[in-house]
Amino acid sequence: MNAQIIGIGTELLLGFTINDDSALVARALAELGINCHRHLTVGDNPERLARTLEEALSQSDLVVTCGGLGPTVDDITLETIAQATHRSLRLHRPTLTQIQRRFRRRGIRMPKNNVRQAYLPQGAIPFPNQVGTAPGFFLKISTSPTKLLIALPGPPYELTPMLKKDLPKHLKPYAGGEIIRSKTLNTPGQTESNIDAKVADLLKLKGKVTLGIYASPALVKLRITAKVASTKEAEAAILRLERKIRKRLGNLIFGADEETLESAVGALLKKKRLTLAVAESCTGGLVGHRITEVAGATDYFRGGMIAYSNDMKCSALGIPEKTLKRHGAVSAQTARAMADGVRDLTGAALGLGLTGIAGPTGGSAKKPAGTVCIALSTPKGTRVHQFQFPGTRQMVKFRSSQAALNLVRLYCLK
Amino acid sequence: MNAQIIGIGTELLLGFTINDDSALVARALAELGINCHRHLTVGDNPERLARTLEEALSQSDLVVTCGGLGPTVDDITLETIAQATHRSLRLHRPTLTQIQRRFRRRGIRMPKNNVRQAYLPQGAIPFPNQVGTAPGFFLKISTSPTKLLIALPGPPYELTPMLKKDLPKHLKPYAGGEIIRSKTLNTPGQTESNIDAKVADLLKLKGKVTLGIYASPALVKLRITAKVASTKEAEAAILRLERKIRKRLGNLIFGADEETLESAVGALLKKKRLTLAVAESCTGGLVGHRITEVAGATDYFRGGMIAYSNDMKCSALGIPEKTLKRHGAVSAQTARAMADGVRDLTGAALGLGLTGIAGPTGGSAKKPAGTVCIALSTPKGTRVHQFQFPGTRQMVKFRSSQAALNLVRLYCLK
Repeated sequence: MNAQIIGIGTELLLGFTINDDSALVARALAELGINCHRHLTVGDNPERLARTLEEALSQSDLVVTCGGLGPTVDDITLETIAQATHRSLRLHRPTLTQIQRRFRRRGIRMPKNNVRQAYLPQGAIPFPNQVGTAPGFFLKISTSPTKLLIALPGPPYELTPMLKKDLPKHLKPYAGGEIIRSKTLNTPGQTESNIDAKVADLLKLKGKVTLGIYASPALVKLRITAKVASTKEAEAAILRLERKIRKRLGNLIFGADEETLESAVGALLKKKRLTLAVAESCTGGLVGHRITEVAGATDYFRGGMIAYSNDMKCSALGIPEKTLKRHGAVSAQTARAMADGVRDLTGAALGLGLTGIAGPTGGSAKKPAGTVCIALSTPKGTRVHQFQFPGTRQMVKFRSSQAALNLVRLYCLK
Repeated sequence: MNAQIIGIGTELLLGFTINDDSALVARALAELGINCHRHLTVGDNPERLARTLEEALSQSDLVVTCGGLGPTVDDITLETIAQATHRSLRLHRPTLTQIQRRFRRRGIRMPKNNVRQAYLPQGAIPFPNQVGTAPGFFLKISTSPTKLLIALPGPPYELTPMLKKDLPKHLKPYAGGEIIRSKTLNTPGQTESNIDAKVADLLKLKGKVTLGIYASPALVKLRITAKVASTKEAEAAILRLERKIRKRLGNLIFGADEETLESAVGALLKKKRLTLAVAESCTGGLVGHRITEVAGATDYFRGGMIAYSNDMKCSALGIPEKTLKRHGAVSAQTARAMADGVRDLTGAALGLGLTGIAGPTGGSAKKPAGTVCIALSTPKGTRVHQFQFPGTRQMVKFRSSQAALNLVRLYCLK
């Protein structure tokens, strides 16, 4: 079985929006063992979309479209698919009810436009949208030769649940042959070449199992990919290589696949029955925000202070004014006093204190932008670490939060 | 003049890498007035790439390829272009010298493989690579009809300098007349169909100036695009439509293009010489984080509390325990006490209080997940707003932060 993916939207074609959808769909197809041999992107142009659809359907067994299912006049996918596959659009009542219910729950009157979203090509089996109004659908065009069409909404957060649930459900009967499975091992805050040096030989692997390295600021991912006959074989092959890598990298790895550093930290705090509080200056709340992205954070996160101004550092955290005066707001001493202060104040087992210069302004020769002090206060004492982070204000903030969460992780692992 | 963009790479086709390049090239072409009518992505497969190249060249005046110019055996673009355009590959000595010099500067011996990168299709004019080894190139295949080909390296940071320098240089003589300019107007926290209804007629505009609508959670963008003869004409045409839209949407619009809600709020607070403090429960620090993403936030942001646990709400914000007991932690009364409390504590002009159920757990029949109360405490009094947000935990948090920042914005505009 082979497939083509069509991204639909003038905003994609003009480059105003990056096409994430095609990659998401391609990965989901690869996991099902469906070979994708082309992605296409076209604008909101019915004629061109119709021609592209017909061409793709003539070349491939399966065509997946992303986008153009919204309620506006720009959204041409439903009409064009109906036309290109010689079907009429029919009102699908349960879908209309779902859309109406969505608006009712939010206490908003459904605009007339949204009715259009419930008119589906004849024979289409809709995929209910969990987070938006546009349903996706599966359409069997012919059985011999196999010609299948799947239409998905454009927003990645609407499309993703359908990739997980509806795609496997409808495509499994048709999938077969070699499957692709992959597993990613995630590491925080190490440069790519550092990690690279430790696995250089493995990055050269050729054959059924390969390793790739993907770096972004304060996050380096190693991806193991297996292209084999069965899921079982894939899992075994991945595990063999994973063991080898883990032996070399040890606790540089914080998690796998979609696991974030904040979820890894959360799981460790829960396991060790520890609680955490934060006192944030330069990160402005980012550490607390990341910790609370994880459901169940209430079990281990107490909260804390956003001690952005010096006043706040003194009044709310009880830091002596002379500490700030003598050493400066960005200093090991202040970070320590923040971490200890917030731990005392909240009664949490662990306290984090972050103070630094996020930049681009505010730096000096002695303390340039990117200087960040992070303290972790624990029952065994307080340790302060000073960093010099490169990059923009946003990157310095993110790198600071990454380093702080990693300190908590390493403490829990000890 | 019209174009197609071809992304080359199995990692793109399998979805392991997001295709940023096509968007970058599309935007560069649009600025030159070159109409792009399709993007394609193919794998490292010479036959399929050859077929795709021939097809694209038969349909369009210009084909731009991205990727596959590296030194490894996977990199098939040079050979395939040579074959598809019936040219031989010839060693380009100055390019080889540049590649060798690059390695020498880094103190590394040039691997033999890299010699391949200096063999270019006959007649190609190379683009020196400022940050990597792979040169791009321009190839005039025929003059009548005009058939041009540009090959660019895959890494976005290698390709971007060529888009800025080499693309305009070689394409300007062909880029007849019309250019594309756009401006985006951003609105917060309104459903797409609500905004849509107000500009429905404008979304149907055909011709030189068009309007598009792009929705993501708590953010709806309207993009005006002008396709006209000159920059001056574009600016005037955009301004005319912008005025019309602003008249209808009024203060629903918070900013244009890359302006974020937090930067709009920051600019207003600065202008009105107001300071802000936050007391965050369900958002866990997200509002503070967003405010401090803007350089210079020190001027108006005091900081605040992440009052995640009930203890923190009472001890640090001085909320009477009976308020929590009687009305619950998620209630208008608690939100009000949080906003007033943090305002008192910090001496800020404005205080925000947010409390809610981010979900997915923790909700009840009366207060389901997504219930959020937001209070804004001001010198003119305190107002509380209750919301019922849809979506995941992450979305509820983001929508809450968006609604809170928008309340501050609307207050400043009054």
